[in-house]
Amino acid sequence: MTKISIRNKNVYYETYGEGEPLVLLNGIMMSTASWIPFIKAFSKNYKLFLIDFIDMGQSDKAEENYTQNMHVEFLKEVFDKLNFEKVNMVGVSYGGEVAIQFAIKYGERLNSLILANTTSYTFNGLKDIGASWDMAAATHDGSIFFNATMPHIYSPEFYQDNIQWLKDREKLFQKALTAEWYEGFRRLNNSSLEYDVRDNLHKIKVPTLVIGAEYDSLLPVRFQEEIYKKIESAKMAVIKGAGHASMYEKPYEFSSLVLGFLSCCNEEFKIV
Amino acid sequence: MTKISIRNKNVYYETYGEGEPLVLLNGIMMSTASWIPFIKAFSKNYKLFLIDFIDMGQSDKAEENYTQNMHVEFLKEVFDKLNFEKVNMVGVSYGGEVAIQFAIKYGERLNSLILANTTSYTFNGLKDIGASWDMAAATHDGSIFFNATMPHIYSPEFYQDNIQWLKDREKLFQKALTAEWYEGFRRLNNSSLEYDVRDNLHKIKVPTLVIGAEYDSLLPVRFQEEIYKKIESAKMAVIKGAGHASMYEKPYEFSSLVLGFLSCCNEEFKIV
Amino acid sequence: MTKISIRNKNVYYETYGEGEPLVLLNGIMMSTASWIPFIKAFSKNYKLFLIDFIDMGQSDKAEENYTQNMHVEFLKEVFDKLNFEKVNMVGVSYGGEVAIQFAIKYGERLNSLILANTTSYTFNGLKDIGASWDMAAATHDGSIFFNATMPHIYSPEFYQDNIQWLKDREKLFQKALTAEWYEGFRRLNNSSLEYDVRDNLHKIKVPTLVIGAEYDSLLPVRFQEEIYKKIESAKMAVIKGAGHASMYEKPYEFSSLVLGFLSCCNEEFKIV
Amino acid sequence: MTKISIRNKNVYYETYGEGEPLVLLNGIMMSTASWIPFIKAFSKNYKLFLIDFIDMGQSDKAEENYTQNMHVEFLKEVFDKLNFEKVNMVGVSYGGEVAIQFAIKYGERLNSLILANTTSYTFNGLKDIGASWDMAAATHDGSIFFNATMPHIYSPEFYQDNIQWLKDREKLFQKALTAEWYEGFRRLNNSSLEYDVRDNLHKIKVPTLVIGAEYDSLLPVRFQEEIYKKIESAKMAVIKGAGHASMYEKPYEFSSLVLGFLSCCNEEFKIV
Repeated sequence: MTKISIRNKNVYYETYGEGEPLVLLNGIMMSTASWIPFIKAFSKNYKLFLIDFIDMGQSDKAEENYTQNMHVEFLKEVFDKLNFEKVNMVGVSYGGEVAIQFAIKYGERLNSLILANTTSYTFNGLKDIGASWDMAAATHDGSIFFNATMPHIYSPEFYQDNIQWLKDREKLFQKALTAEWYEGFRRLNNSSLEYDVRDNLHKIKVPTLVIGAEYDSLLPVRFQEEIYKKIESAKMAVIKGAGHASMYEKPYEFSSLVLGFLSCCNEEFKIV
Repeated sequence: MTKISIRNKNVYYETYGEGEPLVLLNGIMMSTASWIPFIKAFSKNYKLFLIDFIDMGQSDKAEENYTQNMHVEFLKEVFDKLNFEKVNMVGVSYGGEVAIQFAIKYGERLNSLILANTTSYTFNGLKDIGASWDMAAATHDGSIFFNATMPHIYSPEFYQDNIQWLKDREKLFQKALTAEWYEGFRRLNNSSLEYDVRDNLHKIKVPTLVIGAEYDSLLPVRFQEEIYKKIESAKMAVIKGAGHASMYEKPYEFSSLVLGFLSCCNEEFKIV
Repeated sequence: MTKISIRNKNVYYETYGEGEPLVLLNGIMMSTASWIPFIKAFSKNYKLFLIDFIDMGQSDKAEENYTQNMHVEFLKEVFDKLNFEKVNMVGVSYGGEVAIQFAIKYGERLNSLILANTTSYTFNGLKDIGASWDMAAATHDGSIFFNATMPHIYSPEFYQDNIQWLKDREKLFQKALTAEWYEGFRRLNNSSLEYDVRDNLHKIKVPTLVIGAEYDSLLPVRFQEEIYKKIESAKMAVIKGAGHASMYEKPYEFSSLVLGFLSCCNEEFKIV
Repeated sequence: MTKISIRNKNVYYETYGEGEPLVLLNGIMMSTASWIPFIKAFSKNYKLFLIDFIDMGQSDKAEENYTQNMHVEFLKEVFDKLNFEKVNMVGVSYGGEVAIQFAIKYGERLNSLILANTTSYTFNGLKDIGASWDMAAATHDGSIFFNATMPHIYSPEFYQDNIQWLKDREKLFQKALTAEWYEGFRRLNNSSLEYDVRDNLHKIKVPTLVIGAEYDSLLPVRFQEEIYKKIESAKMAVIKGAGHASMYEKPYEFSSLVLGFLSCCNEEFKIV
């Protein structure tokens, strides 16, 4: 819909609805377009804000490598320019890593934080998965890239039931993914290589919901559990039967958790 | 707040707020008063409806034994009298069993169904737990009843962290629970003895959310999973680190799931 | 078979076969007789040693309350008298608690340690379960005692499939359990009330196998995991589909783990 | 040690010790050499039999594609030639798939069957993982192949703790894996593409142990559970904290289960 210029880069974003800002941060292979099925439900009571990070979707490409901190700073500047004093922030996977870093650095700008299928550090195994994705992306071959990534993104169960849809996506990869896209992906992929905020999670004080997915084999539930245990204000639930792409595999469970937490995280349930 | 007469029995209920009816059905040791911490959040967008089943709280006592079907019929008549054409129904544990039976029999009266920490049948082990609870209740001794029940209701983790609150509750049991209450409890306890709807779950077509709790040792997650797998429209999430009394142990997670599902279960998320 | 006098008490034990001593320590409701189905397999390559703790089976009753440390000291003296320089020790549940305390105090007397379905401390919830068992035992009523204990000892799945065998055991309880037995049980039950060795687990250096059971609701797998993580030399496996009485519910898995670990725990598998 | 000629192919095998034959079947990237750390423990009471399938290790390469049934037939002929009337068979991953098919076809030749980290069918997601491995192997590049495979073979936890050993293995891949090896791997990889014995598992009647590993993300525990549920004689245990390469990550747990089950699977534990 519109672009905003930050540090000489055009950053693409979309907004829908009115209310407190609700910012959704993309996973590494996603873009604002990935959220289309969720726009209606998520913009009913919020000003839904979708954004493409640099090197994603319709935002500009970077010229060189960077770390995820660049996205944190860009987000901060975008919020400043748009007069978003406080936002609700939802991050999935890569977007969750950015969200965690934003929360540590600019916690006062958040009303709430929701972290889905994400991790607090790039463990060694994940670095080598990143390396395999980089190698696959470097071929600029849609099939190679598809097979290197998708079986680890979707659960075996989802894969089994939706093989035709997935094969159609493979063809889409072959047709639509450009050299420029692959190189952007490689920079994004590279930007989380040294990510490790395990020692800073305790600084997050905003109401936080951590979402895991039972069958996530890329970032298994125990990695979300580690986040949950280190953030005193954190709550946690696990989506039954979903893989890493929980928002796509189980959109009702994902949306219920997000919208439900937003609606009640500032309540006080006085039990004990 | 008020009572309604059904089949010559006074049935106690409370309503709060305006909107679609949202009916919360109690677990076996609960009453309308158990929901006090949740009233504000749950009545914001709904007409919250709390009710004491016969033999619970401020409703009349029964004169003889019955099955849970009696509660189903009473609910139906209450809804008729109050002109609730369709309701959203949430049942926890025993209340979930009633909710399931209501959904099978009067599914057309439901907009949505949420089942927390419940089961689709009284398995043999549960029957004997019921027997032990009956024997403890028959002593009319608060301490005996407390120790026979509470360690299986709350998770070891919650128990460990809230021992003083629990010991205060034990004293409350000793002081407040009357002979009449215990005999009511025994009839309620007895009413689910032959409960088994495994073969009828497939008849439920309304949007359904099944909630399990990771540390529920009374009705472990696999019993909710069995419900989830047999109801085609069902979604499922598991609350991290809670025992059977998930609504009390993890009120934010419980409320997020309930309110979130209510707000989006009729959306259409077109992914695949 | 024979009794040995320790501190003016007769301690009953049985031995079978020849080889390194293999000591099996009973759970709280067990006795040497509980191991009958395992004698053949466990005595093939070992001198199987079964023993009734004071207040169990055919050993003498105590005159007053004690802690589990008494059993530790009795074991030590028995081993001394029988010239067992080093033993392999297997403890289940209550017997595992004794085994842990023996290992902390007399680690040099162990070749290996196997801990099944046990805990490193009596958590608050377990104390109240203990209280409910004590109250049930105090009635000296077999049915009350059965229903207060058995549904938490066996998994719902085992209970479901073996209800007749269980009901026969209930009758056996009614017939065979004497006032003396119940009072012995109460002292045993009381003896672990203050048990907590969490801070001493790291002292255990002997090859250790920790066994959990997937459906153990009395001492869930996470309590064995806590032991496993604090003993550097520990290995761990989980028996699929068994409850707290894993040795009875899944004797092949239990025996495989015990006999397998005994046969290879002193090997060196040089991988990394 | 020695080769045997089957259908004009040289098949390499090694034997150690005396006793009932104990046959270990390799995972897809393994060879007889992979079992070196286990030889001593596994040959103490058995005639340990290691074998390289066609296209593995020191056995001949194939000239064209085949299915796993070829390995089944080769095994059968080898056993015939060596006069192995009945064997104990252990298969890990790919080797487990071959073992299952052998058990269905030649069950009378087995004393026992142990299946570790394996599956009863090549699900769609696994097919695409196979595709990504094929593409990586086709580059004949050790680093590409390493990164495409290893992060899915070892658990994140093992990877984290043994990164140097893994990086040394990456160098070994670069140095030691030949074009011939890669093409053999591709044929092996291709040979399980259509594998699906779900409907035949019930034919297995021999004492069977199914081993899963808690952190196996390639063939998660639920795939072993499916096998376990369909083989009436099956027992099952799960190794704590291991990934797909459970034998390497947790050799004590793996060996305990294998050796323990071998020693007691023909016992009769009469409980119920």
